[in-house]
Amino acid sequence: MQMLGPFSRMNLILLFPNDFADNASRVRLQGRRLRHVLAVHRASINDELCVGLAGGRIGTGRVTNLNEMVLEMDVCLNRLPPPALPVTLILALPRPKVLRRVLRSVSAMGVKRIILLNSFRVEKSFWQSPFLGEAKLNEQLILGLEQARDTMLPEVILRPLFKPFVEDEISTLIHGTLPFVAHPAASASCPRNIGQPVTLAVGPEGGFIPYEIELLVSRGFSIVNLGDRILSVEAAVTALLSRLF
Amino acid sequence: MQMLGPFSRMNLILLFPNDFADNASRVRLQGRRLRHVLAVHRASINDELCVGLAGGRIGTGRVTNLNEMVLEMDVCLNRLPPPALPVTLILALPRPKVLRRVLRSVSAMGVKRIILLNSFRVEKSFWQSPFLGEAKLNEQLILGLEQARDTMLPEVILRPLFKPFVEDEISTLIHGTLPFVAHPAASASCPRNIGQPVTLAVGPEGGFIPYEIELLVSRGFSIVNLGDRILSVEAAVTALLSRLF
Repeated sequence: MQMLGPFSRMNLILLFPNDFADNASRVRLQGRRLRHVLAVHRASINDELCVGLAGGRIGTGRVTNLNEMVLEMDVCLNRLPPPALPVTLILALPRPKVLRRVLRSVSAMGVKRIILLNSFRVEKSFWQSPFLGEAKLNEQLILGLEQARDTMLPEVILRPLFKPFVEDEISTLIHGTLPFVAHPAASASCPRNIGQPVTLAVGPEGGFIPYEIELLVSRGFSIVNLGDRILSVEAAVTALLSRLF
Repeated sequence: MQMLGPFSRMNLILLFPNDFADNASRVRLQGRRLRHVLAVHRASINDELCVGLAGGRIGTGRVTNLNEMVLEMDVCLNRLPPPALPVTLILALPRPKVLRRVLRSVSAMGVKRIILLNSFRVEKSFWQSPFLGEAKLNEQLILGLEQARDTMLPEVILRPLFKPFVEDEISTLIHGTLPFVAHPAASASCPRNIGQPVTLAVGPEGGFIPYEIELLVSRGFSIVNLGDRILSVEAAVTALLSRLF
């Protein structure tokens, strides 16, 4: 089995408009998706694979041609993708390697809006990372969609200045949602199965500083924790989302 | 800032009996822990760092000497570590890279017993991995304890044969617990905030095969899911634990 990275299980093959050949139901794939189908799915002619159109429906693709050069399928897209989580995630920009994993994992969980925010404890150099380019961000988000069998690409918004974002934008952003900021020092536990839209802010490793917490609280955020244990940013985000929804 | 890997934040410095010098409250550290304190904590003389004795209490260490060669602290251990999760985790052996991350993350979340089990979809080669050696397993578990400020090392049990384990051992193992197996095809949702001891079985990427699910069900396991989305093993384990407890 070819090693394709820990999160790269392609439970759905995500299709884009230019994958479609002459007619609306026939796709031709090469590159990464072809290699994955050969190495991991080990598909044969007439096998049916799970496929989905980016931004659209999911369904099946029947393999009509498969060799080292090309994968052709007849696709039928007849189901809706799974529902999104009603959450906006505000995340203090993690270091690039963690960012990539968090993006895959929150994309798989169904988060559709991610704001990457500066914070006092974010290293300035993280903002220079080539992984913040749109194409690189989308690569990770697509891996998450393929893992979870979703088609709706999340939006990522970069906010390299904390104060103006919180002072000028956040009131509009949180309108109609319950705004929470995760913080180990909080006395309230993160609520469970909340059944309402949420804005969830998660600080950097080491946490938001008191000034940042105070500014968020002044804008209406409630501070919540996940117990006595300090989790990594990636585990904390997954655990918080799983508990809230 | 020296890069030490995504999960290596040492929120607690874990101490072992042979770190203690002449008297019971003075420790001398070198190697990894010294480097981390220099590079990440950037501590100075008289700073207080969070410390804990492996298998014992946590507290503070006041820095009395710190240079490129040695870190010395006067420690006071006066608090209990955070409570364990009342769960036994049965995990189909993931590939080595994923295993390392899952071990760190479940150790941080407070799991104290982990059974690594074979399954039809586990690659045979994974059982040959050098990361299954006791010292290598403990390395990852300790990183999780340091992240979460815990001192109680989890136990890892290897079971390279599925059928005899389930037929001969599992009834005793699950006694007094609610046994769940996570499976995407389940109709029941994973319960929330369950307030009872649990045995949680999680399959490999691609899931347990029907025969394995049936055998677990015949031994009393209930099948539960986490919604329509297929998550990576690592995200699924974190999400399940966060929902159950």
